[in-house]
Amino acid sequence: MPLTLVIGNKNYSSWSLRAWLALQMTEAEYEEVLVPLYRPDSRHCLLSHSPTGKVPVLKCDDGTIWDSLAIAEYLAETFPEAHLWPRGEAARAFARSACAEMHSGFSALRSHLPMDLRRNQPLSEVPAEVVEDIRRICAIWSECRTRFGQDGPFLFGHASIADAFYAPVAGRLRSYAVALPADAEAYVETIYQWPAFQRWYQAALQETEIIE
Amino acid sequence: MPLTLVIGNKNYSSWSLRAWLALQMTEAEYEEVLVPLYRPDSRHCLLSHSPTGKVPVLKCDDGTIWDSLAIAEYLAETFPEAHLWPRGEAARAFARSACAEMHSGFSALRSHLPMDLRRNQPLSEVPAEVVEDIRRICAIWSECRTRFGQDGPFLFGHASIADAFYAPVAGRLRSYAVALPADAEAYVETIYQWPAFQRWYQAALQETEIIE
Repeated sequence: MPLTLVIGNKNYSSWSLRAWLALQMTEAEYEEVLVPLYRPDSRHCLLSHSPTGKVPVLKCDDGTIWDSLAIAEYLAETFPEAHLWPRGEAARAFARSACAEMHSGFSALRSHLPMDLRRNQPLSEVPAEVVEDIRRICAIWSECRTRFGQDGPFLFGHASIADAFYAPVAGRLRSYAVALPADAEAYVETIYQWPAFQRWYQAALQETEIIE
Repeated sequence: MPLTLVIGNKNYSSWSLRAWLALQMTEAEYEEVLVPLYRPDSRHCLLSHSPTGKVPVLKCDDGTIWDSLAIAEYLAETFPEAHLWPRGEAARAFARSACAEMHSGFSALRSHLPMDLRRNQPLSEVPAEVVEDIRRICAIWSECRTRFGQDGPFLFGHASIADAFYAPVAGRLRSYAVALPADAEAYVETIYQWPAFQRWYQAALQETEIIE
């Protein structure tokens, strides 16, 4: 059974993007199934792929993996030569903490600035709790880059799961035109220069589905 | 530097319990620091331990690990002989999916039935979204037990991170006296019979701090 990744619309589905980037980094062959979200039959279709009715889902010989972070850990373990987590215990522990914080947190950013890669317009007003989320995210990025990012422009030098997890945040910060410290702006540019992200981004620009 | 685990009140801090159980399974020596929550100086004290001001936090030679799932993965990697994740790719992928779903989900259960191990009283009314969360949790437990639980009474036979992650749910279901299918009730009993959980539970019963 080949790998199959089930995702949502590329313009909107931030969790799909995370798993998709992790899978791209493995260079494994896989089949991509895109389920358009926000349609009358979306829920029915999603439940045929996933027990939670959410994307992303990875289907493989080892079963159905129904969460982005579980998919990332599965791929890291299955493709050790791709070094999806940074090398070194301290870097890996930091990367896992940062990804887990993203996985369960930043609810203000996620609800007020939903991913919309085609957007190019600031919010009229940025709520205080969103400012606080952005401040914390910039602090994480800064600490990653300073302590672990010597060997390249990504959070831990080379591209890793941490970049897959924060790429949708970079997309939000740019598409909502959020003013950032110079080092955070440079990291957003790194994400936009990342060939894997660019492939997803170009596909998102070409999607015609628009959610109001 | 020995391992240090920073936790909150044993009666209330469900995320602390998850990391604590994972650490107990390693049989490693460690120092425990309990920061009482909900006090005027709690936030200040927590921020001295963790960049997010939340517990649990694991401090070790590899730095500060500030999330329960990241702590679990770190311990699984550092103590491979403890088999914190179940053996076998399929079981491990399922366990990670179930833990990740707990990590980011079940917000209705978490907000309406906050962990309070000393409690012994049903909710006067269980909201529909909580019923839905409980239904999903019972389905996860049932599938784990049926497919992977042949070698013992835990979700994957032997105790694993998955049990550490669902133990606070078992505590809620019992302390809020939720009626359950027989197999789910049996699993709740397994958690209450687990010596590690019992040690935490007895300590929770003896805490004097009461949050209204």
